[in-house]
Amino acid sequence: MDIQAFVEKSLGRWRSQRSAHHLVFQHFEAVQSDIKIEPLSMADAEVIALCQSYDIDPAIAVSPFRMTWAGQSDWDDEDDGRELKGTTVLVPVPDPVHPHQGRLLRDQGYAEEMAAIGQYRLTDEGEFILQTQYDRAMAEEKIWFVTPNLRMRVSLIKTSAGSGVVTASFSSEIRQGVEG
Amino acid sequence: MDIQAFVEKSLGRWRSQRSAHHLVFQHFEAVQSDIKIEPLSMADAEVIALCQSYDIDPAIAVSPFRMTWAGQSDWDDEDDGRELKGTTVLVPVPDPVHPHQGRLLRDQGYAEEMAAIGQYRLTDEGEFILQTQYDRAMAEEKIWFVTPNLRMRVSLIKTSAGSGVVTASFSSEIRQGVEG
Repeated sequence: MDIQAFVEKSLGRWRSQRSAHHLVFQHFEAVQSDIKIEPLSMADAEVIALCQSYDIDPAIAVSPFRMTWAGQSDWDDEDDGRELKGTTVLVPVPDPVHPHQGRLLRDQGYAEEMAAIGQYRLTDEGEFILQTQYDRAMAEEKIWFVTPNLRMRVSLIKTSAGSGVVTASFSSEIRQGVEG
Repeated sequence: MDIQAFVEKSLGRWRSQRSAHHLVFQHFEAVQSDIKIEPLSMADAEVIALCQSYDIDPAIAVSPFRMTWAGQSDWDDEDDGRELKGTTVLVPVPDPVHPHQGRLLRDQGYAEEMAAIGQYRLTDEGEFILQTQYDRAMAEEKIWFVTPNLRMRVSLIKTSAGSGVVTASFSSEIRQGVEG
């Protein structure tokens, strides 16, 4: 499977159940959200601007898409500043030599997300694995399809050196009907 | 990695955080438990009896082990009959032709677990994947190590035909100190 096929399978509306395990505190957090993944045109102004901001020729990018989410957490923090609503543009840039891997560009969106560039690869098992280095943390995501309508996602937040895992999250995402 | 190496890495005491997503009800369940995985001898009477109960020559089995767990769930069902305590003997039987796959025998233990025979395989990514067919359900587990001291486990319970996923669970398991 290449990245184009993976994005194609991911398009649509999903209802997500996410559990975050905060490993140090042994705390469980539960989040329910709706996720929408829609294709964008390579001619889209945001796509072109995102490529240019990383000095990447838009001609080598493929399958850009927009992800939008809105959710609720059971986290009890009364002064909680975490935003569970957002949208972001994502642009895969396959490696010309190893087409099953590449870079994934992400814009800042309107929520807490930072602009970032991650490294992805698709495994023989059909898993999409993404590693993103931030200033003070590293994120590793693994996404795979159990059926065309059920997607699993495991996300790890590590210390920036990559040694310690701070949070491990698991999402089960069920495709919603077209009227969803 | 072969099954002997995978079992070797799994030995010890683990503190587990498990989230179960009951997909139909959109229900979250949180379970905290302690897990102990200890090696057994091939000469162990329980190991030999388990092999014989499946008509398998104990000489082709490898790395038998015992798994013991005790945990607490936040599930609110007052009439809850589910037992969160148990122990079971497990015996891998590698395929002589394809040594990265094989059968995994499991005895009944003293809890709700049924005796079962599952099919496992180890992927190039170092994941252990186990499929077990029961009378009325099918279980699929994926286990991998993030570090030597952090293990992830995703379990799916499917309808017996394997088409519908009823429950998706995620465990993060942290190795405990030797004095744990």
